[in-house]
Amino acid sequence: MTSDGAAQEVDRTLEHTLAHIDAGQEASLGRLFELLRIPSISTQPKHAGDCRRAAEWLSGLLDGMGFDASVRDTPGHPIVVAHDRSDAGGPHVLFYGHYDVQPVDPLSLWNTAPFEPVVRDGAIVARGASDDKGQVMTFLEAIRALREAEGKLPVRVSIILEGEEESGGENLLPFLKANAEELRADIALVCDTGMVGHQIPAITTMLRGLVGEEIVISAADRDLHSGIFGNAARNPIHVLADIIAGLRDADGRVTLPGFYDGVTDVPDAVRSAWNAIGLTDEAALGPVGLSIPAGERGYSALEQTWARPSCEVNGITGGYQDPGFKTVLPAKASAKISFRLVAGQQPERIRAAFREFVQSRIPGDCSVEFRPHGGSPASAVPFDGAPLKAALQALGEEWGRPAVTIGSGGSIPVVGELQQALGLNALLVGFARDDDRIHSPNEKYDLDSFQRGIRSWARILHALAAA
Amino acid sequence: MTSDGAAQEVDRTLEHTLAHIDAGQEASLGRLFELLRIPSISTQPKHAGDCRRAAEWLSGLLDGMGFDASVRDTPGHPIVVAHDRSDAGGPHVLFYGHYDVQPVDPLSLWNTAPFEPVVRDGAIVARGASDDKGQVMTFLEAIRALREAEGKLPVRVSIILEGEEESGGENLLPFLKANAEELRADIALVCDTGMVGHQIPAITTMLRGLVGEEIVISAADRDLHSGIFGNAARNPIHVLADIIAGLRDADGRVTLPGFYDGVTDVPDAVRSAWNAIGLTDEAALGPVGLSIPAGERGYSALEQTWARPSCEVNGITGGYQDPGFKTVLPAKASAKISFRLVAGQQPERIRAAFREFVQSRIPGDCSVEFRPHGGSPASAVPFDGAPLKAALQALGEEWGRPAVTIGSGGSIPVVGELQQALGLNALLVGFARDDDRIHSPNEKYDLDSFQRGIRSWARILHALAAA
Repeated sequence: MTSDGAAQEVDRTLEHTLAHIDAGQEASLGRLFELLRIPSISTQPKHAGDCRRAAEWLSGLLDGMGFDASVRDTPGHPIVVAHDRSDAGGPHVLFYGHYDVQPVDPLSLWNTAPFEPVVRDGAIVARGASDDKGQVMTFLEAIRALREAEGKLPVRVSIILEGEEESGGENLLPFLKANAEELRADIALVCDTGMVGHQIPAITTMLRGLVGEEIVISAADRDLHSGIFGNAARNPIHVLADIIAGLRDADGRVTLPGFYDGVTDVPDAVRSAWNAIGLTDEAALGPVGLSIPAGERGYSALEQTWARPSCEVNGITGGYQDPGFKTVLPAKASAKISFRLVAGQQPERIRAAFREFVQSRIPGDCSVEFRPHGGSPASAVPFDGAPLKAALQALGEEWGRPAVTIGSGGSIPVVGELQQALGLNALLVGFARDDDRIHSPNEKYDLDSFQRGIRSWARILHALAAA
Repeated sequence: MTSDGAAQEVDRTLEHTLAHIDAGQEASLGRLFELLRIPSISTQPKHAGDCRRAAEWLSGLLDGMGFDASVRDTPGHPIVVAHDRSDAGGPHVLFYGHYDVQPVDPLSLWNTAPFEPVVRDGAIVARGASDDKGQVMTFLEAIRALREAEGKLPVRVSIILEGEEESGGENLLPFLKANAEELRADIALVCDTGMVGHQIPAITTMLRGLVGEEIVISAADRDLHSGIFGNAARNPIHVLADIIAGLRDADGRVTLPGFYDGVTDVPDAVRSAWNAIGLTDEAALGPVGLSIPAGERGYSALEQTWARPSCEVNGITGGYQDPGFKTVLPAKASAKISFRLVAGQQPERIRAAFREFVQSRIPGDCSVEFRPHGGSPASAVPFDGAPLKAALQALGEEWGRPAVTIGSGGSIPVVGELQQALGLNALLVGFARDDDRIHSPNEKYDLDSFQRGIRSWARILHALAAA
């Protein structure tokens, strides 16, 4: 057979598999719904049993798909590991995803129950529909279809699915290190990112890191009557507001000393490519009801979220919060604050600078408690080899337009951890859309993302085998 | 009988009544406990029935004590009105108190259930023990003892007890106006204030006013993922923090334009008298675990709370508040903010200045909702006549040291309302101590306050009859 003949053979095989995927749509959706019904919220202790249930469900699914699958205990939620029983040779890929989801509050804003998935307006609606259960299932359904249609997989596949991605769990890295021999592969595949807009397929090569800190400021040793003590006694809400207001200057720059050390602007060529995508500030913010970029002056909304570090308060609480009024002067006030980091910033230096900044603003008769959360550097995936080109090509063929490389504002700590523990580069391919409302009420995943996501993975695995 | 003989007769009668009060201590305490067991939290709609129950209990009590008592409906919680059936002649006093109490959160900080009163370490512990049920009962128990021991009251007594003092209710003023003829008297007696320290009896002649505002800032039309939108999308918590931080300058002065218009310092003589009380900053703040005055530079803690206007945040909320972390960028953030006013400040001008201040700091693509609360001017009781002197003298005799006139940081809107609706000046006599933890967990009222409070009222009513 000539090389052309071999290529035509592969094409015919792939076409057959893609048709098999299309024919199995309803069954694929049914399996995703089963997974979505498990409320595996990793940050809330009461859902620990649900997290284990999700892990066991996935392990059982993979076992039935020809994998040696197991649920591995950790000090936190378990990790699912699976290896293809019938090693087909070719490059060895390690697929990563997470089965845990974000909390669902405020529940009152959901149109349907978050763990009772429905299809509405062409999208699957449920907590985790997009982040990350729907995305995980695009890969698993592609594997199932490839096995069913072709009898074997085009590459050697191992899979790892964790349950603490949404809760800053620190159990994955030790697990990867402890099982490095078993998990070694040629390349990692991660499905936890998105497309650009609704139609441009994308591979993410820049990811921001994260440092989180909860601070609790204590003043008086009890709640006080604001009439009797107000003005004279320190109000911890005021102390907290002063700190938060002081964290950013009038130009939206973070004021922590040394915060921007090592941070560089993206090259002009990259900026030009991003500008060509057509994601203007209005296009980026309009869908959520905003129009004015809020952050660092001089950078587009897209550049602010893809390539600039930031500071956001994710939660604040203090004093009386129920209906009506209570003229209390609270004893404590607290906030959850996170920093998104870019390449060049070191998480623990940022954390130390923040703590020093806060500590220096605490009055002498007050105190502050720091509760650390997360701490991962940014990842700039230095990926210009054949696998990336092959994957871009395969994606472009599925979606009918060239795929692009992009940055992402979200943190995916696993990318750095796969590099650190296993020496693996990761290919970040995902099918989420900007309007998926991940982490928000009414999270959804387009049926189109799910179906063409499955098809995309079938194409990518074939392309990786040929690369 | 000579004048001296009449005075001796009064003294003997009073001694008899005071002995009767002492003999009835246990029964007096039992009646107070009955009232404290009713959870009459006026600001929480679920306790509306309890508020009515407290009103009916008081009306029944007064009926049994020889009063024409009734529970009067209002658009909010009912008001109890009672008049002595056997008018004894002499000056006509209108006693005011309130039967409603503050919320009890955080419940976990109470050592015993807030509505199951106990005596511990010489104090009655319960929500409302001090504010205001214990104080109200000092007057009612004095009336009971005077009637039982002397057969009649030394002055003509009417009583009004409201149920919305803690919830900024706006039903009292219209009620006073609508029933002005029935409620007319020569002087009002209010028992909702405190002593200085533990031993100095006091009559309050300066009261701060109050303006409350709840603000809700809205940014995006949904909660957002801070990784995907952070930096570029406006965070309403940041907007709120900037506003709060901007409300006071580095010297602790409120920055609202015109805020200090009409505000004057107290005369040197008054400041000297206050300094003589010995309430240093350390003495004022030490009992609650603080040591450094937080407010306006150049004023003592005592002057800051008695005679200077202030701004305090009583509650703040936004974003994720449960255990763990959620990297959300919330759609809304809100705060409950109150201003304490002194003589010369007009509540509605302060409210307007605040709203303008906030509105001017709301970004173009965000919005703010204002929810007004309260709005009462300060009261400087211009009281230098015979009744004040007689009451100071009576108090001094009971407590064994001269009584003083003081200011109060708390707002008691009724004082202004009694003046406005009925033309009445009010004599503010109370027996609360600084460490009563009113509005806080483990509120208490010293047994000594309760017993000698009852005795004080018996002395004061006799003194008013003679004045």
